[in-house]
Amino acid sequence: MELWMTEYQTPHLGLSVRVKETLYSGQSDYQTIAVVDSEPFGRMLVLDGVFQTSVADEFVYHEMIAHVPLCTHPNPKRVLVIGGGDGGTVREVVKHPSVEQVVMVEIDGMVVDVAKRYLPEISEALIAGHPKLDLRIDDGIRHVQEKHDYYDVIIVDCSDPIGPGTGLFNYDFYQSARQALKSDGIFVQQTESPFVHTDLIKRVWGELSSLFPITKLYLAAIPLYPSGTHCFTMASKRYDPLEFETDKMVDLGTKYHNREIQKSCFVLPNFIKELLK
Amino acid sequence: MELWMTEYQTPHLGLSVRVKETLYSGQSDYQTIAVVDSEPFGRMLVLDGVFQTSVADEFVYHEMIAHVPLCTHPNPKRVLVIGGGDGGTVREVVKHPSVEQVVMVEIDGMVVDVAKRYLPEISEALIAGHPKLDLRIDDGIRHVQEKHDYYDVIIVDCSDPIGPGTGLFNYDFYQSARQALKSDGIFVQQTESPFVHTDLIKRVWGELSSLFPITKLYLAAIPLYPSGTHCFTMASKRYDPLEFETDKMVDLGTKYHNREIQKSCFVLPNFIKELLK
Repeated sequence: MELWMTEYQTPHLGLSVRVKETLYSGQSDYQTIAVVDSEPFGRMLVLDGVFQTSVADEFVYHEMIAHVPLCTHPNPKRVLVIGGGDGGTVREVVKHPSVEQVVMVEIDGMVVDVAKRYLPEISEALIAGHPKLDLRIDDGIRHVQEKHDYYDVIIVDCSDPIGPGTGLFNYDFYQSARQALKSDGIFVQQTESPFVHTDLIKRVWGELSSLFPITKLYLAAIPLYPSGTHCFTMASKRYDPLEFETDKMVDLGTKYHNREIQKSCFVLPNFIKELLK
Repeated sequence: MELWMTEYQTPHLGLSVRVKETLYSGQSDYQTIAVVDSEPFGRMLVLDGVFQTSVADEFVYHEMIAHVPLCTHPNPKRVLVIGGGDGGTVREVVKHPSVEQVVMVEIDGMVVDVAKRYLPEISEALIAGHPKLDLRIDDGIRHVQEKHDYYDVIIVDCSDPIGPGTGLFNYDFYQSARQALKSDGIFVQQTESPFVHTDLIKRVWGELSSLFPITKLYLAAIPLYPSGTHCFTMASKRYDPLEFETDKMVDLGTKYHNREIQKSCFVLPNFIKELLK
């Protein structure tokens, strides 16, 4: 018997993976949650039918959403991760020697529980209860509204702008995040594919550019996501990632990110430069 | 009615596109040839069931396979394109002012005919009979065997290493190509996905490294191909692409390639560096 699972990444585009086994399937207050063991990507987390992460390629996303902003900031001590229920982002954040505290605010505790059970390679920092980690099952939007001049870096590791992620792609949220950051803070958010989600990227770019003096888009190659190229939008109050001296970087034991990528990820093809004009 | 077409990129991974219309379907001496009009990618060329190119994203592949080697060479005059039946690569090659002659050797004349009819944006240099172009329907392997110290740049724009493309991923062919190049010539070949085709990439890298003093891998984001990230292997007798001064580059009216990408495309994630060790 052949089992296949297809994500319709758009109404016209599907990515299908052959599935060995369904390890978990359930329903939280927010979404359907599944873990399947797939042939091409190994174990995968699937929320509302959307492929979220896989043990085969998760390193790209988690390294790139964490290390690019954290290496841009010269001394990040207090970091907020919104979302990131699988734990991969905090696994990377805690590697930075300067980081003293990581607050992770995930709205759906069931995602955390499922990741701890079925994706231990990704969720290892959650399982071990890392000493730097303060995990809260709560609404990330409310959390940033309550903070002022508090975080060095805010990382929004959210799902697509549908379902629980909607309010995180929003001007009011970006204003709150700016307030929650210190005067030299950095904000970063995953912003989907530059080949597919051009309207979203333009809107987020416009809103963050109006709130922060420095806004940059950077790219990473992620096979599991639509088009295989993913982008992240970084907004910074003071530090420009292109002025950062990468020779100061320490080795973080990464599989994707490195000194050269810390800068080259900001190099954009002409069609993406056009998009941001 | 919904029509979908799926390419099984591996036995375990499928990419499905919604199809508006089948424009052409036929059989040549070498392969099945189809052109479909798809929702996500527009018109697409499909050979033996494998998605070859689309009007939506062809610019990435064709610009990157042509301009990266041609910009590395300080004065490319005579260029060979093997394969490239859709015409996209020669469309880009003829843009270079220094290029005086482009010999294109495509084994399957029916691909050229179909591309001229159904993909005019891509095949425009073939349709117009560009004065720099010498198009031959012939065996590219035999062609390079007959040439010595002749070409400045050889571009292998072939399909996957199955079917007609097999003999082009081969040590004997690489030896012939080295002989067909001038003493400062550059060779480049599309070498599939660094996430999926690791064995092929390692083998080609090893073979070309043993024949040329300078071998480099570079990357491009191509949504239509497996994993969305494609690589090209460049082998050079004299010129190092990383030592090239990009401020000499002329504007080629490109949608993907630019001065910064000419260098940043050679920046590799750690897992690809490991692969090439």
